[in-house]
Amino acid sequence: MHMSNPQPIDTAATMSGAESLVRTLLACGVDTCFANPGTSEMHFVAALDRIPGMRCVLGLFEGVVTGAADGYARIAQKPAATLLHCGPGLANGLANLHNARRAQSPVINIVGDQATYHRPLDAPLTSDTEGWARPVSVWTRTVTEAASVGAAAATAVQAACAEPRGVASLILPSDACWNEGGEVAAPLGPIPAPKVTPDIVQQIARVLRSGEPTLLLLAGRALDEAPLADAHSIAAATGARLLCTTANARVARGRGRFPIERLPYYGDPARARTDGIRHLILVGTPAPATFFAYPGKSSRPYPDDAVVHVLARAEQDLADALAQLAAQLDVPRISAPHSAPTSHELPDGPITSQSVAQILCARLPEQAIVVDESVTFGHAFYPGTMHAAPHDWLQVTGGAIGDGLPLALGAAVAAPGRRVVALQADGSAMYTPQALWSIARENLDVTVVLLSNRKYAILLGELAGVGATPGQVALDMLSIGRPDLDWVKIANGMGVEAARAGTLAQFAELFTMANARKGPFLIELII
Amino acid sequence: MHMSNPQPIDTAATMSGAESLVRTLLACGVDTCFANPGTSEMHFVAALDRIPGMRCVLGLFEGVVTGAADGYARIAQKPAATLLHCGPGLANGLANLHNARRAQSPVINIVGDQATYHRPLDAPLTSDTEGWARPVSVWTRTVTEAASVGAAAATAVQAACAEPRGVASLILPSDACWNEGGEVAAPLGPIPAPKVTPDIVQQIARVLRSGEPTLLLLAGRALDEAPLADAHSIAAATGARLLCTTANARVARGRGRFPIERLPYYGDPARARTDGIRHLILVGTPAPATFFAYPGKSSRPYPDDAVVHVLARAEQDLADALAQLAAQLDVPRISAPHSAPTSHELPDGPITSQSVAQILCARLPEQAIVVDESVTFGHAFYPGTMHAAPHDWLQVTGGAIGDGLPLALGAAVAAPGRRVVALQADGSAMYTPQALWSIARENLDVTVVLLSNRKYAILLGELAGVGATPGQVALDMLSIGRPDLDWVKIANGMGVEAARAGTLAQFAELFTMANARKGPFLIELII
Repeated sequence: MHMSNPQPIDTAATMSGAESLVRTLLACGVDTCFANPGTSEMHFVAALDRIPGMRCVLGLFEGVVTGAADGYARIAQKPAATLLHCGPGLANGLANLHNARRAQSPVINIVGDQATYHRPLDAPLTSDTEGWARPVSVWTRTVTEAASVGAAAATAVQAACAEPRGVASLILPSDACWNEGGEVAAPLGPIPAPKVTPDIVQQIARVLRSGEPTLLLLAGRALDEAPLADAHSIAAATGARLLCTTANARVARGRGRFPIERLPYYGDPARARTDGIRHLILVGTPAPATFFAYPGKSSRPYPDDAVVHVLARAEQDLADALAQLAAQLDVPRISAPHSAPTSHELPDGPITSQSVAQILCARLPEQAIVVDESVTFGHAFYPGTMHAAPHDWLQVTGGAIGDGLPLALGAAVAAPGRRVVALQADGSAMYTPQALWSIARENLDVTVVLLSNRKYAILLGELAGVGATPGQVALDMLSIGRPDLDWVKIANGMGVEAARAGTLAQFAELFTMANARKGPFLIELII
Repeated sequence: MHMSNPQPIDTAATMSGAESLVRTLLACGVDTCFANPGTSEMHFVAALDRIPGMRCVLGLFEGVVTGAADGYARIAQKPAATLLHCGPGLANGLANLHNARRAQSPVINIVGDQATYHRPLDAPLTSDTEGWARPVSVWTRTVTEAASVGAAAATAVQAACAEPRGVASLILPSDACWNEGGEVAAPLGPIPAPKVTPDIVQQIARVLRSGEPTLLLLAGRALDEAPLADAHSIAAATGARLLCTTANARVARGRGRFPIERLPYYGDPARARTDGIRHLILVGTPAPATFFAYPGKSSRPYPDDAVVHVLARAEQDLADALAQLAAQLDVPRISAPHSAPTSHELPDGPITSQSVAQILCARLPEQAIVVDESVTFGHAFYPGTMHAAPHDWLQVTGGAIGDGLPLALGAAVAAPGRRVVALQADGSAMYTPQALWSIARENLDVTVVLLSNRKYAILLGELAGVGATPGQVALDMLSIGRPDLDWVKIANGMGVEAARAGTLAQFAELFTMANARKGPFLIELII
């Protein structure tokens, strides 16, 4: 969170609750708002006209708004505000708030609601707004008077930014917004993440010195460049294995950076990867579970007899914890390995996960932001781009698909000048295709690689996993062809230029062209 | 609910919880499932392959699934099942379940979830599934063992169909589905709606006999043909005014049927319409509130000094209540008024709400189902089609936009042979455009009239209502042009044929052509 340039605080004139909200958010460094407003938010919208400084990005569906706020936070490292309309508007945004919660992304989630005195009358849109917000939020409050709106907004920003960061939901009945008596609140200081105590560090150091097979599992901000370097130094000196969790908010990677492999998604390969470990040391993550349970299989992606240790919990200072551990072990600092020079020769032949990854690796722009919702087909993308130009890699953290295009929107708003590359499965894209319109409207530098396989490929795998051979009903439920989605038309219909690639050469050409131009482009890659 | 043909109950062989679920639903007359399944639902999908009789309709987004189940229930007068994936999948469907709740539509809302023993491990998709379901549900249960799945499903059907009907949410951890030991449950008898007691009827009759200005306000099943006829006879004999609520699940209307006007959406015209009444008699609705509160305006759309009486609450037998009241008052039965013959001359000139309504009135097919999410522009559609061919009129009941296309999908599945006409505002259509794909896949007889005005017109009105002149920020937030949505391309991209109409003559021609063909067609009407 940046609070270096607080806005001047207006204490003289009378102002509405809505105005105190906008001014307080700006004072707290929140200057971007992803919005899908309705009637109860009109005073907020009117206040935005009067007060300069807030960038507003309109989404045509709330899942776009909340996913964009998540993507923004991951790149800007500070929260954006959302603006949602009543309980049902919030409900439409919940799935991507769930993802934001799992990403530990700070979000100021503003939900306008019925006036305090109107709510008991149970008008049609009235619903359990607070009840829906609470499961995804680190902080939830309904403010019932204008005088408290500013203070609540400042508290929301502080709560969202305290580790582990998260969604602060501020529910604002419309009369709290339109009434006079608003007071701008000063930013509250950040709450520092608690540090790990030396005795824990010593204990973990003893485990690592034991020489027994050990896995260091990293998550969250432990994947920032500095702590990742410390983790690599520790692993190199002690022989510990190093992995990060399966789905991560943001990994800094590419040429000149330390690589980090992910714990595989499925239990069997994950257990193969962790086979033989005696100790599992957690840094910023609870003990991992597989995404789903399967009959007769363990829910844990590591050996049953491994001893689980906690170096640091998600709410602690992970960078400090790894630095302390490196110091305690007195490990020599190592440098990131030299990357093999990237081949500029492009692959030929069939379109496979590997061959597409080769093109991505060769042609990814410097400092690109990759948003990966490629699901089944994209399994080779992450390992295959380790030596690409330096970039950030963003994933769907909570398993709720339909986050990819919104994350790309938010990341692009947060990082003008950087190319966003969205690796996007077709089935998942259909949950929030409206994001394309916002990307077009803002003319953002986003290249969408739409992987068109016309089925829920992952579910066909899951069905096989439960021992079933799909019959006609199952095939019908898991195939999304008939009719085929035409992504060039869908993108065009929402204002995004697009073209189809049926060969690797066409894809390479379109990918290079798209990344070099200003504004968005969608490539429908038939796979 | 139809239970005339229960399936034979299999008591011999062992079966999974999933299989007992499918067989119990079929036994209870639930033979249609709108689905957006994920990993945790694969055993249900596999069971569908083995057991014939369930029609499965795939939606590419959960809001499509839940809105379709609502539309299906309104027409079929029995529930369909949904199939959703974990908390976030449910979350995506909540807004239209909110609408279904307000419509009192029976829905068997099936949510697959993490296995019972996997849930405590807090895997990425784990969330508060029950907490999210409860506010939209009349009944919510998480079943934790296979042996209870069948009984819970039968109870869910009974609960959903008891007046006031609603959403029964059945949450099924995956192990309860895959474990053996499932038992098919027999259908439970319907719970009859309680009847209004004679003393209440006498009390209301006294009010009506007083000769004081009285409004009879109808909702829900009071809008079925028989009770509506009784209400008209009562009004004609006593001089009472007659209205229905602003947003209704289904109104039977058109030539040869009794017309019923709606309470206006905004408070001022509603109070003008109810001006002077001394008594407000409620039939199947609580005392109405305006959709939203506005500074300095009453939240009630009727005079402050009107005395509110309740003839029947939503959970009571509304048809019986009105029949009892008609008998108590001994009113003569009247016939539906003769409709003015519909002019076959089509209007010329500008495209207005009125001129479009004239075309709808002249060209609406017999027994059409009209789904009205026309929002601002469509204000003349309902009054202007009173004399159209007999039809049903469905509205978004809970104010959560994005229900129109899903309702059309569900209504069309429920009523093969009837034409569904979706009158659809563009901004609202963008919440659930994926419904077009399901409509195309099922080749349903749906004509979508997409009203393209490229702005949130209702919000521009609301902004003016709060006394603000929109500045650039507000205009940007309330305009959905730049880029213009191209609905012909969006529809084509999802497999629906489409064309654009820029004049009344083009619209009339396309509307007639679309209604005469097999399968769907979308008309983008530039307004």
